[in-house]
Amino acid sequence: MPNYDHGTTTGASTLASPLTEIANPAQPSAAEEARTIVASTSIGTLASLTADGDPWASFVTYGLLGGNPVLCVSTMAEHGRNLAADPRASISIVSDIAKDPLATSRVTLAGAVYRPEGDDFTAARDAHVSAVEAAKYYIDYTDFSVWVLRVDRVRWVGGYGRMASATSAEYHAATPDPILAKAAFGVDHLNADHAEALLLMAQHLGGYPDATRAVCTRADRYGLGLQVTTPRGWAPTRVGYLEPINDIEHLRTATVELTRLARSRASAKGM
Amino acid sequence: MPNYDHGTTTGASTLASPLTEIANPAQPSAAEEARTIVASTSIGTLASLTADGDPWASFVTYGLLGGNPVLCVSTMAEHGRNLAADPRASISIVSDIAKDPLATSRVTLAGAVYRPEGDDFTAARDAHVSAVEAAKYYIDYTDFSVWVLRVDRVRWVGGYGRMASATSAEYHAATPDPILAKAAFGVDHLNADHAEALLLMAQHLGGYPDATRAVCTRADRYGLGLQVTTPRGWAPTRVGYLEPINDIEHLRTATVELTRLARSRASAKGM
Repeated sequence: MPNYDHGTTTGASTLASPLTEIANPAQPSAAEEARTIVASTSIGTLASLTADGDPWASFVTYGLLGGNPVLCVSTMAEHGRNLAADPRASISIVSDIAKDPLATSRVTLAGAVYRPEGDDFTAARDAHVSAVEAAKYYIDYTDFSVWVLRVDRVRWVGGYGRMASATSAEYHAATPDPILAKAAFGVDHLNADHAEALLLMAQHLGGYPDATRAVCTRADRYGLGLQVTTPRGWAPTRVGYLEPINDIEHLRTATVELTRLARSRASAKGM
Repeated sequence: MPNYDHGTTTGASTLASPLTEIANPAQPSAAEEARTIVASTSIGTLASLTADGDPWASFVTYGLLGGNPVLCVSTMAEHGRNLAADPRASISIVSDIAKDPLATSRVTLAGAVYRPEGDDFTAARDAHVSAVEAAKYYIDYTDFSVWVLRVDRVRWVGGYGRMASATSAEYHAATPDPILAKAAFGVDHLNADHAEALLLMAQHLGGYPDATRAVCTRADRYGLGLQVTTPRGWAPTRVGYLEPINDIEHLRTATVELTRLARSRASAKGM
């Protein structure tokens, strides 16, 4: 599990620790989280270097060649001139902004840009136009150029203190989560109609036998994320499915299995 | 008026030029546009420098001390360590994302960060907490630090080819537009119920006597932005009020005056 603790002025931990083993803590890797965020949108913010070597932040759109962002920028814009002079760049990409902005998942992809040629140019141009509908109107203007950011370094932040790096190899080998973006309805349904099942999962599978409430915060290919309330404070935990799923149609079966497992463990303890 | 023309593969202009003088082209300055965007949100993307001098893009929240963004970042995050090692930074701030992302207004503020002390720290801390509600829970954690970005350079992009720089002095002297964010209802009303008045404005005040359609795209303290359609193509233009306004309550009167003026000019020409 990632480290959730910030240093506090008193030095105390800010989260309740699990009291029993988490049955199946499986969760997406940092590389998978990164690929999922990057695939979820086509806008981000580029950091490039000015002629003085100063950092320059600017809004950009992108398509994807595998996990590498494909930019289309104008030399009328400062970032276009920056990339032409120094290829070092990174891009910050943010998933849907949470009500509390710092709880928002985001990623920084860092590396160097290059101008693709030949078949690579065609593939990059197609990737950009298919992701950014309006680009077809300007991508062939003489002041616009297509650049590919070759991702060498990945830093993922999943919210408060949830952060990890991924190597370039891990990032490029990973795939976006096929469940997360489609699970909102399922998550709402679990919270609205199956609060008791979620609480049993938190108590008997999630490591928090003293949980008094459990809210499902997400469903991904490996399991459910829960936020549990205990008399000792709150904490996030994980309840992994019996097997990973790759189709949103399987979410219901996977959660029914978890509910059965939690109930059988509760019965075994005579609860 | 800013330059809207991109270089095209044929070298032709992509926009219809005005045929007559624009009666009152008054519009916000780049500095005013920048202050308006910066005041409209509390999230942006920071560009800082890594230990290797590479550009690092990362999601941040901010409050405002005048026009200077106040950041609160953790040394658990790479950008916190970057700022501590090299104060050079810029921040990209984006207004509401338009359906066509590159039509979105955005600004880059560049300069250097410093850690405020004494009364300046108190003011900066208060500015951040009042803008970022959740910050009260973590701003006093030992791993978080408050930084002020002293804005030295400003680059505003209002959409395709609408871009201009502002000096530090211009930026700090400017104020956010008091009308723009409150005018959506008024703009919708003009387009829904006063299409003929907008067309008269475009023809007799906006420089496009051959306009066949005019859509109001925004209302700010100086006037209306119109997008006009002509047999020669489309173009943006401006119809400035008789006097700038500072209260959304005055928008109706200002547009009624513009309609009267456009009608009287049409009558004078026997139209």
